[in-house]
Amino acid sequence: MRKNTFIIKQRAFLKLYMLHEAEKGRLYGLQILENLQDYFKDLGYKPTKSEVYKSLHELLKEGYVTREPIKKEGAEMQTLYIYRLGDKEKVKAYKDMVKADLDRSIALLNRALKDNYSQKRG
Amino acid sequence: MRKNTFIIKQRAFLKLYMLHEAEKGRLYGLQILENLQDYFKDLGYKPTKSEVYKSLHELLKEGYVTREPIKKEGAEMQTLYIYRLGDKEKVKAYKDMVKADLDRSIALLNRALKDNYSQKRG
Repeated sequence: MRKNTFIIKQRAFLKLYMLHEAEKGRLYGLQILENLQDYFKDLGYKPTKSEVYKSLHELLKEGYVTREPIKKEGAEMQTLYIYRLGDKEKVKAYKDMVKADLDRSIALLNRALKDNYSQKRG
Repeated sequence: MRKNTFIIKQRAFLKLYMLHEAEKGRLYGLQILENLQDYFKDLGYKPTKSEVYKSLHELLKEGYVTREPIKKEGAEMQTLYIYRLGDKEKVKAYKDMVKADLDRSIALLNRALKDNYSQKRG
């Protein structure tokens, strides 16, 4: 785990969700941005295109996913990719690390709520 | 609240704790860094000197705290400051905003835990 840092990085959070989609066999480069933006809309979080693509690129570079081109009906010059889960042991180790960071982050934020907002008023 | 961002910023988190110390009349420039580092040690978070001083500076600049020099026994050239709570209404509005961001952040992280780690295994 990262040492002495504040809370989980956006990049790790996004990569976690992408791995989940890859596990289900439905991680497509074009769709993931829109899907994530929709999914977190109710919580006021709209991941940017730049963040999402950097996260995807890291997953690929680090070997957590592999990709292959797919043919799209009627597509001309455009190459679409589907991303598949890479080495499963490696992915599991990464997810375990991210879980520890999530747990730690939630504990830190809950402590802040308790310390700063639980006084009696009146 | 900030729009479409991921989760609460470290700066807001630190400022919240500093306001709490100022409310109790015990926010001193020299001590706050060490106190915060001690307090979050168990959760693997060690705020840096730079982050803590920038946060303190922002609170001062934004009028959430005021400061006054204090005399230190035996001190020579060094000026120590105590920071006191500024405009209470303004501080309350800020704390309310940070609470909303904390609640939202916790909801986002809990969703990630649930979505990515609650499948049955075996």
